[in-house]
Amino acid sequence: MSVLDGPRRETRRVVLGGRVHLCRAENDDLVLDDGRVVPERGATYAPPVDPGTIVCVHLNYRSRAIEFGVDLAGGHPTYFLKPPTSVNSHRGEIVCPADCRLVNYEGEIAAVVGRPMRRVRPDDVWDHLAGFTCANDVGAHDFRDTDAGSMLRVKGQDSFCPIGPGLVSGIDVRRSTLRTYVNGDKVQEGTVSEMVWGIDELIADISRHVTLRAGDLVLTGTPWHSRPIFAGDVVDVEVDGLGRLSNVVVQAPAPVDGCGFPATITKTSLGVALGSDYRVLKQGEDAPTPEQYRSARRDLAASNMVSGPKARIHR
Amino acid sequence: MSVLDGPRRETRRVVLGGRVHLCRAENDDLVLDDGRVVPERGATYAPPVDPGTIVCVHLNYRSRAIEFGVDLAGGHPTYFLKPPTSVNSHRGEIVCPADCRLVNYEGEIAAVVGRPMRRVRPDDVWDHLAGFTCANDVGAHDFRDTDAGSMLRVKGQDSFCPIGPGLVSGIDVRRSTLRTYVNGDKVQEGTVSEMVWGIDELIADISRHVTLRAGDLVLTGTPWHSRPIFAGDVVDVEVDGLGRLSNVVVQAPAPVDGCGFPATITKTSLGVALGSDYRVLKQGEDAPTPEQYRSARRDLAASNMVSGPKARIHR
Amino acid sequence: MSVLDGPRRETRRVVLGGRVHLCRAENDDLVLDDGRVVPERGATYAPPVDPGTIVCVHLNYRSRAIEFGVDLAGGHPTYFLKPPTSVNSHRGEIVCPADCRLVNYEGEIAAVVGRPMRRVRPDDVWDHLAGFTCANDVGAHDFRDTDAGSMLRVKGQDSFCPIGPGLVSGIDVRRSTLRTYVNGDKVQEGTVSEMVWGIDELIADISRHVTLRAGDLVLTGTPWHSRPIFAGDVVDVEVDGLGRLSNVVVQAPAPVDGCGFPATITKTSLGVALGSDYRVLKQGEDAPTPEQYRSARRDLAASNMVSGPKARIHR
Amino acid sequence: MSVLDGPRRETRRVVLGGRVHLCRAENDDLVLDDGRVVPERGATYAPPVDPGTIVCVHLNYRSRAIEFGVDLAGGHPTYFLKPPTSVNSHRGEIVCPADCRLVNYEGEIAAVVGRPMRRVRPDDVWDHLAGFTCANDVGAHDFRDTDAGSMLRVKGQDSFCPIGPGLVSGIDVRRSTLRTYVNGDKVQEGTVSEMVWGIDELIADISRHVTLRAGDLVLTGTPWHSRPIFAGDVVDVEVDGLGRLSNVVVQAPAPVDGCGFPATITKTSLGVALGSDYRVLKQGEDAPTPEQYRSARRDLAASNMVSGPKARIHR
Repeated sequence: MSVLDGPRRETRRVVLGGRVHLCRAENDDLVLDDGRVVPERGATYAPPVDPGTIVCVHLNYRSRAIEFGVDLAGGHPTYFLKPPTSVNSHRGEIVCPADCRLVNYEGEIAAVVGRPMRRVRPDDVWDHLAGFTCANDVGAHDFRDTDAGSMLRVKGQDSFCPIGPGLVSGIDVRRSTLRTYVNGDKVQEGTVSEMVWGIDELIADISRHVTLRAGDLVLTGTPWHSRPIFAGDVVDVEVDGLGRLSNVVVQAPAPVDGCGFPATITKTSLGVALGSDYRVLKQGEDAPTPEQYRSARRDLAASNMVSGPKARIHR
Repeated sequence: MSVLDGPRRETRRVVLGGRVHLCRAENDDLVLDDGRVVPERGATYAPPVDPGTIVCVHLNYRSRAIEFGVDLAGGHPTYFLKPPTSVNSHRGEIVCPADCRLVNYEGEIAAVVGRPMRRVRPDDVWDHLAGFTCANDVGAHDFRDTDAGSMLRVKGQDSFCPIGPGLVSGIDVRRSTLRTYVNGDKVQEGTVSEMVWGIDELIADISRHVTLRAGDLVLTGTPWHSRPIFAGDVVDVEVDGLGRLSNVVVQAPAPVDGCGFPATITKTSLGVALGSDYRVLKQGEDAPTPEQYRSARRDLAASNMVSGPKARIHR
Repeated sequence: MSVLDGPRRETRRVVLGGRVHLCRAENDDLVLDDGRVVPERGATYAPPVDPGTIVCVHLNYRSRAIEFGVDLAGGHPTYFLKPPTSVNSHRGEIVCPADCRLVNYEGEIAAVVGRPMRRVRPDDVWDHLAGFTCANDVGAHDFRDTDAGSMLRVKGQDSFCPIGPGLVSGIDVRRSTLRTYVNGDKVQEGTVSEMVWGIDELIADISRHVTLRAGDLVLTGTPWHSRPIFAGDVVDVEVDGLGRLSNVVVQAPAPVDGCGFPATITKTSLGVALGSDYRVLKQGEDAPTPEQYRSARRDLAASNMVSGPKARIHR
Repeated sequence: MSVLDGPRRETRRVVLGGRVHLCRAENDDLVLDDGRVVPERGATYAPPVDPGTIVCVHLNYRSRAIEFGVDLAGGHPTYFLKPPTSVNSHRGEIVCPADCRLVNYEGEIAAVVGRPMRRVRPDDVWDHLAGFTCANDVGAHDFRDTDAGSMLRVKGQDSFCPIGPGLVSGIDVRRSTLRTYVNGDKVQEGTVSEMVWGIDELIADISRHVTLRAGDLVLTGTPWHSRPIFAGDVVDVEVDGLGRLSNVVVQAPAPVDGCGFPATITKTSLGVALGSDYRVLKQGEDAPTPEQYRSARRDLAASNMVSGPKARIHR
């Protein structure tokens, strides 16, 4: 049965009283698996699933390709992995090490595998999925210049994969729109129809080489306008029919000294993290500091939202 | 290396900001795996391990055998299983369905498997363990008369296996004493030296038939004076060197009607749940109600503590 | 979607070239997940799923209740657990320790959980299952007199839970018949309609107290005529629509001496293991030996099959 | 206790009779966990552990850096991930899709995590490891030009991470030498002392950002002379004290057509796959074909072994 066919069904998981409970949302409450009803407000969420493998696509939304000046026509999707330890929950904390200053949000839709898949054709993919959830493919571009493209340090850090609030099936996500908000301001918007490769095509492609197992995640790309967030910010990823994933950014101590690659800000990392804002912000030869970005970002975001690639795509 | 040899090492796990964190206790704080330091007070604990198999021994402490009038000399330990879904955490809630009125605590020491074991001799057991933790083998004796001794409904309910606070190695638990407290009053006390079969003997015995895997638990029995607890009670299990596991009892709705065995109070279940207090409390032919027990239990416990089997053993 | 609704779908797992592969049967071949086609004959199977919890019902088929002289009317099902380490595969070996002489087959249908369940009503159970598979709830009745009914040593030994060959959905098992064969002779036969409690009722009942998770198994009982098997025997469990699970019995050394309960043959264990054959076989006061049973069992089985409870039920 | 300290202990896992068994090698036999003894020859191995996360370092052996003309001095290690589904066993098959013609071996040492790690200093790493095993970081360079450095399709394919034969502790692997053989001919040789970053430094570095959990693997780099292998080849990776991992290369059908990146041979992929042999082999402007390489490789390997970077390092 296709995961796209209704009725809509959502399963959430919360931590309550020392255990993870299944539950479903009902008005302002959560109905727990043991029959208790608790207020939704203030609930401590667990991730809706425990993935073993998390595959992410690099570029997939047309607006992001335009932003990077890349023509995806005739090309192929490319992928990277996040480790399962990066998984985070609705209302969880995105933990920024103190030496990182270019930690970006990327609002995404995550497809959740229901039955194991290998060599599955696109048409059969929908029948192998358990559902979808909102995701944030957080990245610390301070490590952009290392890991030779695998981005383990950029995208794989603990807490850098918030998913939730719940696992949803029975929604035709192909008609959904995704929006990201920072402190309530809309900063990303993209429709699934804007994807260059459909969710079914991505998963079929991955399954040509790699077995996907129940609970595994495929993150399907982000629209344009991924930008840095800072300790204290609240980031929400909202997808029509799936709900709204909300996370707060907090700071942790910098990693232990004396070994390992140091967080580094370069023109490349600034270019990736700030996108077109980099050109706007920099003064002569000097690169903008994260502090400069932080103070300017609300205005930049507002103007970007009306003039950016999305506007051009949907014109 | 024997798990009994020092130095003492303890690892705890807490849920913070949407993820499970490793941590260690330091004074009044927890030092998290990402370098942050948070107050220990009020932390939300996760179970120190995620067991696949949980094996429990029925009778092992001499005082409990005396209480039940059983002579274990020349006999053999007998075992039952709790499902992994029964696992609970330090500060977690013991959830009593509304129709259960004979839910008992049983303070225990849990041995945690470190390396897989099969056909291991007692001498080699210590080298295969990861450590120990406090446990509470909670049981709803309202279901005593069903499951023909396997006790799935008695001992296997969700939340009925609190463990914690942490996983401890480097302690010679053979010299430890276990104590259980209800609302601060001591209600159980027993030394590990009181066990009829040593922890090494129990585990070697189980491994004659069953493979134990990393993270699996063996609960090693409870001393005399397991008694009922009720919604609102706070139950602590304390073991020298391991710490103090604390849990609160809460109520959930009774299970869905119309199918399944109903919670039932019989003379047998009262006898098991109340132990010698049953004889003291009952009036003529009438069985005591849980309400009667609740109001009398503090006095009963106090007098039991000075005159019970433990006193006789250690005299 | 109900697991009972077609079309039929089967997934098997085989070990080939150092890895577990998904596959499907096609004529005399297996089509592997990587596109290779290998002969089915001689394939090394893995269990179709990796359960965390395995719940078994004691008595459920009417014929077995008659055999034991038990009236289940008005009663309730009772359950016990097998550990996950007991799981075995199609074509796997049932390993009998050398000191066990009353190891019995019990052909069963196993329901496989697809989505987590707690407090699920019978009508909703079918929508939470991933499928069904054949199972053999092997038991060493030499340990009948220990574990006080939990049967850890009887039913929980390594290899004592063969399941397979595959995971099947899209079959209305309520109309299926189960048959067990020893060395090709039919020794058990029972229809699912003969069950006192339906598969949906059993699972709803368990879920009143215990969370069931994806991959967990519920073994739904065995019809009458469970009997001993011996090293060299081949035991098959066949269920209409699910396939035929085949296992061979082999011998391993007896467990390490000097600790633990010894395998023991008593009148009770013989009575359970041999059923009505016990009365037929014993001479005066002497209990039959396993050797006597082995030499007589084919004739006993043949006559039982025509005159036993099943015949009476379906008359 | 440091994993480097003796005595040596090795645990293997084999698939026998439908189940995975722990065992230890003794002369020409394997002693199983259930006491049975079977010939080692012809045993079907399982991977010694089931990792969740597999982190690999790109360049670490001095000889490989020389081969690629890279100066690692003053630099930092870079990493990528392989998915857990890539894991393979001793004697397992390395499965090459029919369209891949540049599948290379890379003999490596894998460190196996024993206790979870985050923010661990190099000195503490040895105390957190369970042991070591031989590994082969197989890669299909036909996909070199995709995945933007993450190498999911190059290094992450099913079967591309053989490990084994067993999990070994109590060996000071820092003094070991690694050798790779193709069809019996030595094709790689490197000492652990040749590593630019020690195993403890790599793991401490990863743990600055990512939690490593029990069973996780860190693959620690390969010496120079990774070269292509073809269906029918036998590849062995041997490490002093750890044993010898042996695998055979087989062919599977090419992935399903019509979606996904096609396997492609370019100058870049040939340069990476063939190393310095590329320059020797190519004629004028024409790139060598895999067939040309196959026929020439034995001579190339033999001459490389005497004149290559290793010879220069150890001079």
